[in-house]
Amino acid sequence: MKPSIPTGTRDFSPGDVRRRQYILKTISTVFELYGYQPLETPSMENLTTLMGKYGDEGDRLIFKILNNGLNNPVKAEKTRAAFENVLTGKNDPNLTERALRYDLTIPFARYVVMHQNDLALPFRRYQMQPVWRADSPQRGRYREFWQCDADVVGSNSLINEAELLAIYREAFNRLGVPGIQVKINSRKILAGLAECCGAPELMADITVAIDKLDKIGMEGVEKELLERGLTEEQIRFITSYLAIKGDTGAQLAEMASLLAGSDMAQRGITELQDTIALHNQLKNKDWDSQLVVDFTLARGLSYYTGIITEVSTTAVKMGSIGGGGRYDDLTGLFGLKGLSGVGISFGIDRIYDVMTELNLYPDTLATSTKVIFVNIEAEAAPAILGYVARLRQAGIASEYYPDKAKFDKQMKYADKRNIPFVGIVGSDELAASVITLKDMRNGEQKKLNAAEIVDFLSKAQ
Amino acid sequence: MKPSIPTGTRDFSPGDVRRRQYILKTISTVFELYGYQPLETPSMENLTTLMGKYGDEGDRLIFKILNNGLNNPVKAEKTRAAFENVLTGKNDPNLTERALRYDLTIPFARYVVMHQNDLALPFRRYQMQPVWRADSPQRGRYREFWQCDADVVGSNSLINEAELLAIYREAFNRLGVPGIQVKINSRKILAGLAECCGAPELMADITVAIDKLDKIGMEGVEKELLERGLTEEQIRFITSYLAIKGDTGAQLAEMASLLAGSDMAQRGITELQDTIALHNQLKNKDWDSQLVVDFTLARGLSYYTGIITEVSTTAVKMGSIGGGGRYDDLTGLFGLKGLSGVGISFGIDRIYDVMTELNLYPDTLATSTKVIFVNIEAEAAPAILGYVARLRQAGIASEYYPDKAKFDKQMKYADKRNIPFVGIVGSDELAASVITLKDMRNGEQKKLNAAEIVDFLSKAQ
Repeated sequence: MKPSIPTGTRDFSPGDVRRRQYILKTISTVFELYGYQPLETPSMENLTTLMGKYGDEGDRLIFKILNNGLNNPVKAEKTRAAFENVLTGKNDPNLTERALRYDLTIPFARYVVMHQNDLALPFRRYQMQPVWRADSPQRGRYREFWQCDADVVGSNSLINEAELLAIYREAFNRLGVPGIQVKINSRKILAGLAECCGAPELMADITVAIDKLDKIGMEGVEKELLERGLTEEQIRFITSYLAIKGDTGAQLAEMASLLAGSDMAQRGITELQDTIALHNQLKNKDWDSQLVVDFTLARGLSYYTGIITEVSTTAVKMGSIGGGGRYDDLTGLFGLKGLSGVGISFGIDRIYDVMTELNLYPDTLATSTKVIFVNIEAEAAPAILGYVARLRQAGIASEYYPDKAKFDKQMKYADKRNIPFVGIVGSDELAASVITLKDMRNGEQKKLNAAEIVDFLSKAQ
Repeated sequence: MKPSIPTGTRDFSPGDVRRRQYILKTISTVFELYGYQPLETPSMENLTTLMGKYGDEGDRLIFKILNNGLNNPVKAEKTRAAFENVLTGKNDPNLTERALRYDLTIPFARYVVMHQNDLALPFRRYQMQPVWRADSPQRGRYREFWQCDADVVGSNSLINEAELLAIYREAFNRLGVPGIQVKINSRKILAGLAECCGAPELMADITVAIDKLDKIGMEGVEKELLERGLTEEQIRFITSYLAIKGDTGAQLAEMASLLAGSDMAQRGITELQDTIALHNQLKNKDWDSQLVVDFTLARGLSYYTGIITEVSTTAVKMGSIGGGGRYDDLTGLFGLKGLSGVGISFGIDRIYDVMTELNLYPDTLATSTKVIFVNIEAEAAPAILGYVARLRQAGIASEYYPDKAKFDKQMKYADKRNIPFVGIVGSDELAASVITLKDMRNGEQKKLNAAEIVDFLSKAQ
């Protein structure tokens, strides 16, 4: 039997784990600096918690867990009925009542509702956990992948938006990703556009079309709008909307005039202005705080109601690496009305790919082991075990090759493992109570005693 | 609809996550010091990878994932056939071909076999991930829980055993868990006992019975052995085995003489002696290296073949909090013969409970936010946003209460969140460019400017 893993899933070898942990740790450190607290929810949720929250397509992609004990003869009748339901595409709690987490937002909403009496609001939480989707796997798309979200619930203040945008800056700055562009828009302006067109019911059609401007150009957008049932006059209005360019102040002023007929749009414009101002007050000399107002930005998820944002890098061709926005009534799904939320998400898998392509990981990530002692002289074992104990006590990760083997084989092992130093204790070294320490990068060797090796390796890179 | 989570699963609120992360981080730091590298495997494995590896009971407790697209009419016939199989207790790949990870050892073996051509052997890995079992939930037993394993594969050296035992010491020492007792035994000695009794086929019965000595006493063990088919003479022999006490040297010498008839037992005794000697050479002044030889220690899992170990604390009544041992042919299950492995496991949930009961967590774990600025004076917003930006740049986690609200409400919030300092900027402070900083623990207040608050909070606990 030749073992394999399910399509769309991955093993993460040590180097992969270290690189991913580096990304997650960097981001979580920034989340904590801004007062966000860690939350973890179960991998399984009740199927009723998840169904109907992600649209029909989402429902179809949820991984359901088979109930156990289906061969129980007492339940056979119900189980058979459940089978018939499944054949017609319906879920049945007699066959499956649990499912794997599909995102982190619905479990967060569920958590807030369940813990509403203990939570201090506003509640800021971050969550970094895998989610599962039965999508067709393809390059960059997996069936098990990580999400990394920060959300605050229970506050209407735009300070939250400003801080979340700052978190993007700070995190990508710390990760060293160049060319970061943070775009913002407001769903209220998009709603206002539809309103001013006299087609508020076509807002979704309008946003889907203009969202594609980058890809299909202005002519393509016009064609799509026509197909989606907008009149020539409406399309001319939308074209003038899309034509608004220039610096942020001029852009917002022109938009305020174009959408003068919509109170909703005016509120959206004011919110954008205020968010930008607050964000600038948070600025930090370490990072560029420039935000890009992009009136074509739409974000697919339908629950956003206010400011929306999307992050990309100009350094690599790779869609968005983060996004988010405000949603006015997320916990309403679970019966708790009137709590506003705003959040952002980091696209960990794409960030991983960007950082790999640009080689942005610190060199020291390759291995934590700094020295390995070869095992060539049986008599040296007690001395070497004493050395590694002393090194570890000083916080230096150390190994002793456990089996007696050919010197060359052990050197190759050290090399393959990227361990920077090899310690050699043969009979001469043993007699003199010293270690020959070889730097694997340049071949240099030196003889050191126990105290000296601790001192040397504490400082060595 | 009142939301809930599946039985046997848990939400981990911020404080829980911080405490668990503290435990996992402490243990992984020690793993890294000893050259163990992180590995992560998918939550889902092919059902064929897992089935038949954990016994009949294990097979029954594996969570299976329902295939998607079961309502596809083209597959209806196969799906119906699969239903019939499920009713008789058989798995069918047309209904379920994936399942949730049940432990970390089988995925590790599967990984090693799949990556055998790239891996540098010996391969030391640690893995800290959740596993899922459809067991009846009860106090301390969950359907989703964390395992935390370190294993080395591809080395026969007892240095590995010695180092793994040292890892237990070092990790529990760092966690501050008192009364740690590390017991060791060898499956070879247990096999030798059965051999000397003339009942090698009853080894499992003998070990199950003597494993209970603590609970049911010597009489209970004798009764159980009788019920399990051992003769009076055999039971007398086992009683003399169990009567061996004293210091380690005397114990081992006496055992060597009692089991003189078994080469297997002699090898086990030598291995115990060598492991203890190697472990003592690794000793470190920070921790007590005493190992307790316990000939009644058996460890349930049948794949162990050499040294076995179990850890507990005398400070709390709470079974074992860790265990492990050597297994000679784990990867053989997946067709790769002749690779020996040895590993240990930390019982994270129980360690969490022990540390909670003994209150062993650092005080600083409660929150990472050091200061929150109240929001009482709208004019102060730009100044406060500048302060929090400056504090964050200095690595001090800071918050600005985002909404204007009553002073008392905001103070209560700070208190509930366990935030140690509150920053107040009213109109007076704003005019004087200072912050009134209140220590929430003792009520003390002082006025500081921006540079002073950074300096003060950098040093404050």
